Amino acid sequence: MNMQANFAGLQVGYDVPALPGMSVEEIQTPCLILDLDALERNIRKMGDYAKAHNMRHRAHGKMHKSVDVLRLQQELGGAVGVCCQKVSEAEVFVRGGIKDVLVSNQVRDPLKIDRLARLPTLGARIIVCIDDLDNVAQLSVAAQKHSTSLECFVEIDCGAGRCGVTTSSAVVALAKAIDAAPGLKFAGIQAYQGAMQHIDKYEDRKTKLDTAIAQVRDAVEALKSAGLAPELVSGGGTGSYYFESNSDVYNELQCGSYAFMDADYGRILDKDGNRIDQGEWENALFLLTTVMSHAKADKAICDAGLKAQSVDSGLPFIYGRTDVKYVKCSDEHGVIEDPDGILKINEKLRLVPGHCDPTCNVHDWYVGVRNGKVETLWPVSARGKAY
Amino acid sequence: MNMQANFAGLQVGYDVPALPGMSVEEIQTPCLILDLDALERNIRKMGDYAKAHNMRHRAHGKMHKSVDVLRLQQELGGAVGVCCQKVSEAEVFVRGGIKDVLVSNQVRDPLKIDRLARLPTLGARIIVCIDDLDNVAQLSVAAQKHSTSLECFVEIDCGAGRCGVTTSSAVVALAKAIDAAPGLKFAGIQAYQGAMQHIDKYEDRKTKLDTAIAQVRDAVEALKSAGLAPELVSGGGTGSYYFESNSDVYNELQCGSYAFMDADYGRILDKDGNRIDQGEWENALFLLTTVMSHAKADKAICDAGLKAQSVDSGLPFIYGRTDVKYVKCSDEHGVIEDPDGILKINEKLRLVPGHCDPTCNVHDWYVGVRNGKVETLWPVSARGKAY
Repeated sequence: MNMQANFAGLQVGYDVPALPGMSVEEIQTPCLILDLDALERNIRKMGDYAKAHNMRHRAHGKMHKSVDVLRLQQELGGAVGVCCQKVSEAEVFVRGGIKDVLVSNQVRDPLKIDRLARLPTLGARIIVCIDDLDNVAQLSVAAQKHSTSLECFVEIDCGAGRCGVTTSSAVVALAKAIDAAPGLKFAGIQAYQGAMQHIDKYEDRKTKLDTAIAQVRDAVEALKSAGLAPELVSGGGTGSYYFESNSDVYNELQCGSYAFMDADYGRILDKDGNRIDQGEWENALFLLTTVMSHAKADKAICDAGLKAQSVDSGLPFIYGRTDVKYVKCSDEHGVIEDPDGILKINEKLRLVPGHCDPTCNVHDWYVGVRNGKVETLWPVSARGKAY
Repeated sequence: MNMQANFAGLQVGYDVPALPGMSVEEIQTPCLILDLDALERNIRKMGDYAKAHNMRHRAHGKMHKSVDVLRLQQELGGAVGVCCQKVSEAEVFVRGGIKDVLVSNQVRDPLKIDRLARLPTLGARIIVCIDDLDNVAQLSVAAQKHSTSLECFVEIDCGAGRCGVTTSSAVVALAKAIDAAPGLKFAGIQAYQGAMQHIDKYEDRKTKLDTAIAQVRDAVEALKSAGLAPELVSGGGTGSYYFESNSDVYNELQCGSYAFMDADYGRILDKDGNRIDQGEWENALFLLTTVMSHAKADKAICDAGLKAQSVDSGLPFIYGRTDVKYVKCSDEHGVIEDPDGILKINEKLRLVPGHCDPTCNVHDWYVGVRNGKVETLWPVSARGKAY
């Protein structure tokens, strides 16, 4: 395929940060680049793991918000579909041809419910999460209006402390209501322990997950007793997927960040005490930045600040460098300690963002690179799709 | 003007968060809303202040990234033009009809320099900042290539600790080089003390600014002695503009956040010890959010998380409420302490974002509201324009 043909009329700088065929040195910054070799290895590895453990992998599309990355996860990693957090994201993935879409979140606004209930008419399986009996009736009315079927997960709060019910009796009550509601189908359980994913030590994460799995197991047993055995029990992230995979309770994973990696995930430790970005996963996502001022001898200023990344989970680090350090982030600038004054104006650096999800959400494009060349450009298809 | 005619074919939810004529209750969230009455009062007030103090006001467009807001700042507040931080932002403002545009930053990348040097052909005055002699030659070559004139400010680092030179001799050397370079014109000084803007106490800010003003005054005297009196001395922000205005050194302000306000600026104190969002300026920007889960009695979950705002300068607060509190922000959710369980599903709340600039940069639209109705939609014209 001639990738350049897809970008006819687009000008570098004005419209896009790069075009296929350019060298990495010519990319306009700040922008996100993907190391395609590393990305493909990460995707294949997770796919192989899921297959070997007889787990479905529903890749979390909220991380990258990209139809192209999701397709790669399906093609190379055997992903069964996508999960995402917003109806507007689901619309993007359905229009992009993804056939199995979970909104791993509650949908309560009347207009959003209407849009959600319309989506199955486009040929996709649509699943949504529920943690409130009132929502069952609302979704049922909308599905009937559009003559569609909405599948529903009951969401268990197994430690994230946000949405979801906490008792097995509440799970069963919701499942019964869904099962009885016209237009709805009870499809399983959503149970993602979000609060433990970033705990450094493996054993500490395991302790949290053991508790979560016990809670989910209890709910599954209660559902079975009620004649409502769940088809899918879904959850798991980059810091926990091995626990869910070996639980005999979960049968679907929802990992997202493994594909790109970031600084906050990278520093957590595997069971041998190694950082997970030093063997388990590779950094595939970088925020490319350029030095654009060096008026002080020991301090370089680069062009990637708060408009190019989210620092909610800490500052980025400079990939492959220990001689210079990104120490401060303001709206438009990064301050880099350069004690020996070795950085040059227009020198490019690869930053590993602190937190990939909200960082991807400020960019319009991924620049896919391989062997020093730009190979492709992928739009961040669902960027800003929050409402 | 019939605003709705501008939005023919756009669907609420799919394409835009609202349409003119809708009630505020119908707006799809999370999204940014502007209280147009408050915005207009802020803009008029700063305009009146600048006029009374014989200061030019070059409104900082990097904050809102909106041609429409900038036009309002020109029309109601007498702003002389815009400053922004990126060439791509400058392109948006020039195409939007703004005639006096300062890139208050260094431009070093060859392609960006070329784009900058082309901009005066579109009929705008273009000014750029310089802190390195090498840059003078690069800009001169580009201006000659496009047969344009680029005006240049020498940037002084008067405390921000990023770009800019620190000595008057370096200022004079750069000004002389600019003055001698074909295609360039020495137009003045950029001296923005960014590091003091958010210090709480007025007296502490004054101390920092006194130092900065002394430094700038010394540079201006040195330039005059060299026969290069600066036409413009530009700087000042929402936390300092009264100091620059009364300095007899500066003649141009660059305030931005005053128009929208945010939580981090709002908490700084004026000279009487009052928060500046309690009289000096009004909150005009809000992140509208909706409660979408309340599965625990004392905790409401809303739909505005890290994808809808930047928390680099702290969490948002809930406007006009002391009974409930936004206490945690994850990718897609905000956790609200609701000890008495008074929030209802689908109830809307107005959040005042911690930091307006990077928060505006994740949204595609401003929804302008007045008297409970949507009056207009403005695109965040330069959203994502970073490269």
